[in-house]
Amino acid sequence: MNFLEERIIKDGAVKPGNVLKVDSFLNHQMDIELMDKMGEEFYNRFKDAGVTKVLTIEASGIAIACSVARCFGVPMVFAKKSKSVNIDGDVYVAEVESFTHKNVNKVIVSKKFLNPEDKVLIIDDFLANGCALQGLISITESSGAEVVGLGIAIEKGFQIGGRVIRNLGYKLESLAIVEEMDAEKGTVTFREQ
Amino acid sequence: MNFLEERIIKDGAVKPGNVLKVDSFLNHQMDIELMDKMGEEFYNRFKDAGVTKVLTIEASGIAIACSVARCFGVPMVFAKKSKSVNIDGDVYVAEVESFTHKNVNKVIVSKKFLNPEDKVLIIDDFLANGCALQGLISITESSGAEVVGLGIAIEKGFQIGGRVIRNLGYKLESLAIVEEMDAEKGTVTFREQ
Repeated sequence: MNFLEERIIKDGAVKPGNVLKVDSFLNHQMDIELMDKMGEEFYNRFKDAGVTKVLTIEASGIAIACSVARCFGVPMVFAKKSKSVNIDGDVYVAEVESFTHKNVNKVIVSKKFLNPEDKVLIIDDFLANGCALQGLISITESSGAEVVGLGIAIEKGFQIGGRVIRNLGYKLESLAIVEEMDAEKGTVTFREQ
Repeated sequence: MNFLEERIIKDGAVKPGNVLKVDSFLNHQMDIELMDKMGEEFYNRFKDAGVTKVLTIEASGIAIACSVARCFGVPMVFAKKSKSVNIDGDVYVAEVESFTHKNVNKVIVSKKFLNPEDKVLIIDDFLANGCALQGLISITESSGAEVVGLGIAIEKGFQIGGRVIRNLGYKLESLAIVEEMDAEKGTVTFREQ
């Protein structure tokens, strides 16, 4: 087990409905040392990709993305969730369905911050059905920039998102892939990587 | 002028309606080196306050708060904006009015992450009318924890928020206080500190 898998076992909690609570260190209270360790790990996995920008989506991806961007010495851009129906022409837009909140968000990135020369590393905390990542890929490619990789803290391996993105040919690296969770026993099983 | 004021002059843009756009380095695309410099500056200003936790609100406060928390070696907690009417009993809640989006958000922090022993440093990117900060103060004090300080990147000194919070007796430090902006001339005047 790697450091993130160990931490999930130690401090994560399995709730009914395949919910994995990691809010004490990853997406509500943040352990900055852990963020930095993840940043270094993603740097090692993507250091030859020529990354010029790290892209994430608000809110809980931001902390990890900061640590990653620091390792690469590049700016971090976060996509914003927008409720406005009227989006002006200066932004790239994608629609992202949220299963947690049962709604569709418009997600936007200003055109100023992505350009055709950019090699973009997309970072997020969770991957389940993959809607958020697909939105970030779509926004990046709309700008003419290249998605050189995707780095995820925790992937729910029993949901479809990871498979779809790998099938599309992207280099997707997840630090922990949950294969199975049992809320009654409180157990988590990780995929061997 | 300090490093942040210089950066605002260099890369900020003044728009009609007292809007200061700093999205190329502070709240959409983030300059991580600048975040870290702000982190160090807040550390210097609050290093004797016994800070045990850094609290911010999603989304654009998160990056600065991470850099601050790293300097102190403490966890960072971010308050979440919640659309749910039904909030369970495990969270502290405050209502925060947004003038930008013309709505009221419920802002929540899980009770697990604030306790009476905590000495909390509240961090945010912008201070205008102060509603968000008041919500974070209210949440912190609901938990029995102490607000030992508030650190803001950019305060709009011509709006009421900063005065109210200082009048209440809190130690509020803003790295840049904008006294005046002129959209036609594109000028920004800072308060001497």
